[in-house]
Amino acid sequence: MSEARIWHGGDLDEARRLFPQAPEPWIDLSTGINPIAYPVPPLPASLFARLPSPADHRDLEAAAAEAYGAESTATVVAAPGTQVLISLLPHLRAPSRVAILGPTYAEHAHSWRKAGHDVAEIPSLNRLDHADVLVVVNPNNPDGRLLKREALLHLAKNFRLRGGWLVVDEAFADFDAGESLMPVLPSNAIILRSFGKTYGLAGLRIGFAVAPEPITIKLRSALGPWAVSGPAIEAGRKALRDRQWLDSAREARTADARRLDALLMHVAEAPLQGTILYRLLESPRAGELFRALGDRGIWVRRFQDRPHLLRFGLPCTDAEWKRLEAVLDSFS
Amino acid sequence: MSEARIWHGGDLDEARRLFPQAPEPWIDLSTGINPIAYPVPPLPASLFARLPSPADHRDLEAAAAEAYGAESTATVVAAPGTQVLISLLPHLRAPSRVAILGPTYAEHAHSWRKAGHDVAEIPSLNRLDHADVLVVVNPNNPDGRLLKREALLHLAKNFRLRGGWLVVDEAFADFDAGESLMPVLPSNAIILRSFGKTYGLAGLRIGFAVAPEPITIKLRSALGPWAVSGPAIEAGRKALRDRQWLDSAREARTADARRLDALLMHVAEAPLQGTILYRLLESPRAGELFRALGDRGIWVRRFQDRPHLLRFGLPCTDAEWKRLEAVLDSFS
Repeated sequence: MSEARIWHGGDLDEARRLFPQAPEPWIDLSTGINPIAYPVPPLPASLFARLPSPADHRDLEAAAAEAYGAESTATVVAAPGTQVLISLLPHLRAPSRVAILGPTYAEHAHSWRKAGHDVAEIPSLNRLDHADVLVVVNPNNPDGRLLKREALLHLAKNFRLRGGWLVVDEAFADFDAGESLMPVLPSNAIILRSFGKTYGLAGLRIGFAVAPEPITIKLRSALGPWAVSGPAIEAGRKALRDRQWLDSAREARTADARRLDALLMHVAEAPLQGTILYRLLESPRAGELFRALGDRGIWVRRFQDRPHLLRFGLPCTDAEWKRLEAVLDSFS
Repeated sequence: MSEARIWHGGDLDEARRLFPQAPEPWIDLSTGINPIAYPVPPLPASLFARLPSPADHRDLEAAAAEAYGAESTATVVAAPGTQVLISLLPHLRAPSRVAILGPTYAEHAHSWRKAGHDVAEIPSLNRLDHADVLVVVNPNNPDGRLLKREALLHLAKNFRLRGGWLVVDEAFADFDAGESLMPVLPSNAIILRSFGKTYGLAGLRIGFAVAPEPITIKLRSALGPWAVSGPAIEAGRKALRDRQWLDSAREARTADARRLDALLMHVAEAPLQGTILYRLLESPRAGELFRALGDRGIWVRRFQDRPHLLRFGLPCTDAEWKRLEAVLDSFS
């Protein structure tokens, strides 16, 4: 792909290139994906063979509307992952001034820029100037910063007056939806929700945009029918309706996040930040720790222009916890 | 979805609404999907859990380049089905005059129109007038009409002079690629290839655009990374590299198409047309036959504005062949 490369989590090929001597199997802590996946239901051959039916596609959107507390199914657009929605949105609007509250997930700025918009990463909401589009990730990736719903509603109102959009990427809101804009969707807001992170099924590719009708019509038009695969529709709608699984996953991952904090605490310079699915470590020794972990086959997320930060996803098995603990112990 | 409805094959919900008394299971002959699917390889849980790696995504594109005889992998863009490419393309070009050689697959006209282009369906290439974009389906759906490669190259050259595009949808070219533009890709052409039809895996959602770089860059930008699911990448690259399967599938489906022609012959008004994966019947009694088949639980493809046509996909099992034969026998 002839594009500027962005660093992403999840690419173990990159890990193996950087640390060719590291022991296998690699422990991948570089993503914010739940390491304990929702159990994929049996997938009959017909789900692979046949085109997904329009009724099943709509039922996936209905399941998402229920799970997220959206006002109506009509506001929900299912897509093969949130990324394609992030990539598409900038193509659905004439060149605009786009403000992105950062630092945050880099694909937002990248996508708006590639589509020809004038993009500024702003460090604070006091610096909105004359933007036509505001993008916020809430809670934020990687630092977990959470904007209040009231503040978002106020912003949406300001942008509405100038014909602008408010894009709220709620990729990590499933486990803590207290400030979600979902139940009070403003008429110029686009909310993004990821399925794969919470449910540990990122390979299936499911994501949602929730927005009022003029925007959903454009998105459905750009995606066309059948954009989501049959297996994804089947697993997705079952998972989204399983409230019990979500509740127990929340509890278990919260405990994991606390356990991870306890391990990282003595390396950290400042209190750990993040969400239940990832923790952000700030330390002048971050680069050194990145190499120590890499040498031992543990891949964490570093940041191109912020070398003092490392983001840790949650280990999965006891063996993974022990290997991580061993590196951290020997590091201090 | 608040859109004008297009009739498509494959929607058995619609069949059940129209023929509530029909016996189950329905026989779905309404699509052009190979009824004998490529055997899906074992899909380890990690394909569902992890984001597809960039290397695996590129390898799927490499497998497609080999299978289709494309000049280079760089020209190939993998997507979650051809439909999303059909829907996206019109968003990547300023409002243009678009000519579509028809009648043909309705989603092309629908997608260009929805994106604000001026669309004309033309009955012949003599009626191109001043179009900026020409869309042809080759071989055509539903009638199998095949344009020669030389003619397409000539058209591409004409359109290049006016900054125009030639879009060639080769959805049904896998089994007979003799006139494919693939090995001689013009600099202003976009070729679309479907995976699901030939390999009988439409639910997986894989499709490809093959085009020169300025266009692939736009498409990759609109799709973003990870648009194709992990299971789809795995099954897709294996299937595309299995030449032996393709060859024996071609032979078996050719025999099926002949067998179907023999059954339909005595109802047909004109010689049967189409491709190996579907046969087009022309008869003044088409509407009557559609209802006779529907009453007996056999769903075929009819056409909104051409009531004298019916398209038949290939039956799969002996039982399906027998049920079809019984209806056709009792019909004459």
